[in-house]
Amino acid sequence: MTGRRLIVVSNRGPVSYARDEHGVRVAGRGGGGLATALRGLAGRCEVTWIASAISEEDRAVAAESGGALEHELGGARVRLLLLAHDPAAYDRYYNVVANPLLWFVHHSLWELGRTPVLDAAFAEAWRDGYVRVNESYAAAVVAELDNDPDAAVFFHDYHLYLAPRLVRDARPDAVLAHFLHVPWPQSDGWTVLPLDARRAIHDGLLANDVVGLHTNRWTRNFVASAVDVLGADVEDGRLRHRGRRTAVAARPISIDCAEFDELAESPAVLAAEAAIERTRAERLVLRVDRTDPSKNIVRGCIAFGLLLDRHPEWRGRAQLLALLDPSRQDIPEYVDYLAAVERETAAVNARHAGAIDLRVSDDFPFSVAAYKQYDVLLVNAVFDGLNLVAKEGPVVNRRDGVLVLSENAGAHEELGEWAVTVNPFDVLGQAEALHAALSMDGAERARRAGALASFVRVHDIGRWIDAQLADLAAVAR
Amino acid sequence: MTGRRLIVVSNRGPVSYARDEHGVRVAGRGGGGLATALRGLAGRCEVTWIASAISEEDRAVAAESGGALEHELGGARVRLLLLAHDPAAYDRYYNVVANPLLWFVHHSLWELGRTPVLDAAFAEAWRDGYVRVNESYAAAVVAELDNDPDAAVFFHDYHLYLAPRLVRDARPDAVLAHFLHVPWPQSDGWTVLPLDARRAIHDGLLANDVVGLHTNRWTRNFVASAVDVLGADVEDGRLRHRGRRTAVAARPISIDCAEFDELAESPAVLAAEAAIERTRAERLVLRVDRTDPSKNIVRGCIAFGLLLDRHPEWRGRAQLLALLDPSRQDIPEYVDYLAAVERETAAVNARHAGAIDLRVSDDFPFSVAAYKQYDVLLVNAVFDGLNLVAKEGPVVNRRDGVLVLSENAGAHEELGEWAVTVNPFDVLGQAEALHAALSMDGAERARRAGALASFVRVHDIGRWIDAQLADLAAVAR
Repeated sequence: MTGRRLIVVSNRGPVSYARDEHGVRVAGRGGGGLATALRGLAGRCEVTWIASAISEEDRAVAAESGGALEHELGGARVRLLLLAHDPAAYDRYYNVVANPLLWFVHHSLWELGRTPVLDAAFAEAWRDGYVRVNESYAAAVVAELDNDPDAAVFFHDYHLYLAPRLVRDARPDAVLAHFLHVPWPQSDGWTVLPLDARRAIHDGLLANDVVGLHTNRWTRNFVASAVDVLGADVEDGRLRHRGRRTAVAARPISIDCAEFDELAESPAVLAAEAAIERTRAERLVLRVDRTDPSKNIVRGCIAFGLLLDRHPEWRGRAQLLALLDPSRQDIPEYVDYLAAVERETAAVNARHAGAIDLRVSDDFPFSVAAYKQYDVLLVNAVFDGLNLVAKEGPVVNRRDGVLVLSENAGAHEELGEWAVTVNPFDVLGQAEALHAALSMDGAERARRAGALASFVRVHDIGRWIDAQLADLAAVAR
Repeated sequence: MTGRRLIVVSNRGPVSYARDEHGVRVAGRGGGGLATALRGLAGRCEVTWIASAISEEDRAVAAESGGALEHELGGARVRLLLLAHDPAAYDRYYNVVANPLLWFVHHSLWELGRTPVLDAAFAEAWRDGYVRVNESYAAAVVAELDNDPDAAVFFHDYHLYLAPRLVRDARPDAVLAHFLHVPWPQSDGWTVLPLDARRAIHDGLLANDVVGLHTNRWTRNFVASAVDVLGADVEDGRLRHRGRRTAVAARPISIDCAEFDELAESPAVLAAEAAIERTRAERLVLRVDRTDPSKNIVRGCIAFGLLLDRHPEWRGRAQLLALLDPSRQDIPEYVDYLAAVERETAAVNARHAGAIDLRVSDDFPFSVAAYKQYDVLLVNAVFDGLNLVAKEGPVVNRRDGVLVLSENAGAHEELGEWAVTVNPFDVLGQAEALHAALSMDGAERARRAGALASFVRVHDIGRWIDAQLADLAAVAR
C-alpha cells in the first residue's frame, strides 16, 4: 500500500463539531471507536476520510469549507470530507434502516412473530433514505477517485452496503474493501428483509475486492449467505459473483494498548479509581456496555441476582457495577430496553440491598478505573461482532480479574480458552459461571489473566491495521 | 419394508379418549394431522404406535389395558401403546421444553434481546421433564424391539430428540428413522439452547439411520448445523458421527386428496358452504391457521388493512375470512398472540367496517367449505415446516383461487412457481400481493390453480408414505 492514498468511508468521522457555551466552535471525538482504531493508518499512508456531517455545526463546517478539511489524526494530517445529506434522508437512513432495522438483523434481535413490520414507511426509508445516502457517498468516493485514481477505498460497516456497487459500476478498476464491525447472520436471518433489499445488500458487498469481518464464524456465515441469497460461487476460498472475485477475511479488530496503559495512569483515571476503592465491595463484578439489547444487560442482572440467591456466601461481599453508556435513546426499542434494565436492577436490589450499582452515563475515565479494579468482567452479549470491552479490561486490570464471556461474542474466538464461557440465554449458567469465577483460586486467575493480557498486547490494533493494508496491497497487485 | 413391523413413536397418538355427557368412554381424533398422514401405513405393514396418554381417560385406558390396545386406523388394525408419564414430568416436557421453547427455536420466534430466560425452571424442566419422558419412550421402544427385533422404528418430531440415542445405545443394530415436521433453524439459532442441550438434540437425531425433513432448505440447514454443533462429517451426502452414518432426506409431506374430495361433497361441508355463499363478499380472501405466532396472523391483518387503504376499489368488495383454531391457550405467549390478533382485527375493522371476519373455533367442515369458496388463500407464515393449508386449499377450491405464499413456508419449495410469493415481514409487499392476486386475469388464475391442484394430486400423501418406506428399506438392506 506504500504510496497509495486510502479513502476511508464511514458514517461517523473522526471528529464532530459543536459550539461551546461561549458560542466558540469546538471539535470533539466523532466515531470514537473507529477513529481510534484507524488512527494508526494516518501515519502509514495518505488518508482521505469521507463521513456524514452529523451535528448542525458539522453541516456549517462542511458548508464553509466547500470541500475537504484538514484534520489531525494520530499525529498525522488527514483530508476530511463531511457530507451534508438531506436531513430527512439522513434520518430515514440512520434512524429507520440502519438502526434499528439492520442492527437488529445483524444481532438477531427482532421478535419475528411480531417485529419488524415492514410497511410503507420502511419502503420509503429504504428508497428515499438508505439508497439516497449511499448514492451521496458513492458520488463523493467517485469524485475522490477522479482526483486520485490509484487510491484504495475502505468502506466501513452496515450503513454503506449499497455504495460499493455504485462505485464499482462507475470505476470498474478501483480497489475496494469493506470492513463489517457487526456479526454476520446466517441466511435465514436475512429473510427479515424483502428479497430486493437483501439481494442489494449482498450484491453491494460483493462489489468489493475484500470483505473483512471479525471472526472466522462471521466469515463462514457471510460466504454461506452470499451463496444462498445471490447464488454466488465459492472459488479458491473467494466468492465469485457477476464475473468478479471477492476475498473474505477474518480480521479481529483490537485496541491500542499503549493508549490504555497511558490512560490507566492518567489523573482522571487515578481519581476515579480512588473513588471506587473507597466504596467498592470485597469482590467487584463489572460490566461496561452501551444500553443496547444486544449487550444482554437484563439477563446479566437476573444472573447476578441468581448468584446471590443460590450462593449466600457472596451476599454483601460481591457487587455488580454496571457502567452503561446511554445509547440511541431516540429509538423506542432502546428506551424500552433501558427501562427493562432499571426494572430488573430494582428487582434484584429489592431482594439483595445494594447488590447492583447501575450507572448510566458516558464516563470513560471511570470505566478505565473500573477495568483496573474488577475481580470479574461480565461480557454476556446476545450476539456481538467482537466486543472490545473483553480486550480493554484484561489489558488494564490489576487484580487478576476473570473474564466471563459469551460464546456469541466475536472475541470468544480469540479469548475463549482463557475465559469462563457462558451461553447468553442461560441465566442459571451465567450465575454459576460468576460463582466459578469468584471462587477460582489465585494461581488459575493469574494464569488466565496473564494469558489474556499477553494475547491482546501481541494482537493489538497495529496488527489489525497491518492486516488491512496487506489485504489491500494483495488486491492492488 | 414388506414383512417388517413398523413402530411409530410420537407424542400424540391416533386416538384420544374422553367421557361423553353420559359418562360413556368415547374415542376421538388424537394427533389429527399425523394420524391422517400415517393412516396409509397401516395397510402396508404391521404397525405398533407408541404415544403419550394425554387425557385423563387415556391414562385410564392405558391402566386398564396393561399393555397394547387394538386401534383401527385407515381400515387396518394397529397395536397402540399409550405411555402414562408422570404428570409433572409430562407438563415440563410438553409445556416448558417442547412448547414454547423448542417450537420457538424451530420457528425463530424468540425475541433474543429479552427471551427466553433459561433459569432453574428450565434446567429442571429439561432434566426432570424432557429427559425423563424421552427415557420412558426409549424404554417402551426397546421393549417392543425385544418382542420383534426386526421392527423398524419411526420417531416423529421435536418432542423426542433424545429417545433415538437411548434406543441406539441399547440396540445398536436397530433400524431407526426420525421425521421432523418443523423447520430446521441454522446453527446460530441453536445457540438459544445451552451447549449441552443443543449437543444432546443433534446427537440424539444422529443416532437415527435416516432423518427426514420437509424441504431441501431444512435438510441443508440440518446438515450444516450438525457439522457446526457436533463437528459431524459429511460423507457421500450423509452425516458421519460417532462411527455411524445418517442419511438426511427431504420428503415433503402431503394430504390425502381422496379424503378431501369426499369431504368437499359431505353434507356438513355443503351446509357450511351454503352459509358462506349467502353472506360472502364479492371476493373472499381466506386464511386457515392455528393461533400460533409462527403463522403470522397479525401481519396478515395489517396487510389486508393496507390493501383497502391503498386500493379503494376493494373496499366493500373484498373480505378477509380468518378461520383460527385456538392453539395452546395454556401457554402465555399464545394467549398474548391471540389478543394481538383480535386488537389488529378491531383496528382494521374500525377503518373499514366488516373488512375482517375473524372466527376463532375448531370447525373443520367450515374450513373445507371456505377452501371451496376462496378467491385468494393467504399463507404468510413467519417460518413453517411445510404448511398443509397451502396444499389442502388448491385441491378443494372451486373458483381458481390464487395462493399467496410465504417464502419461509416449506411448501414454497414445491408450490412457489404457481403462487404469488410474499416475504412474511413485509406487510406492504403482502398488501400488494393481495392486490395482484385479486386483480389477476381469469386465464392466469386458472392456469396457476390448475397446476397447483395437479401437483398436489400427483404428490399426495401416498407418495410420501412410499418414500418413507423406501428410505427404511434402504437402511434395512
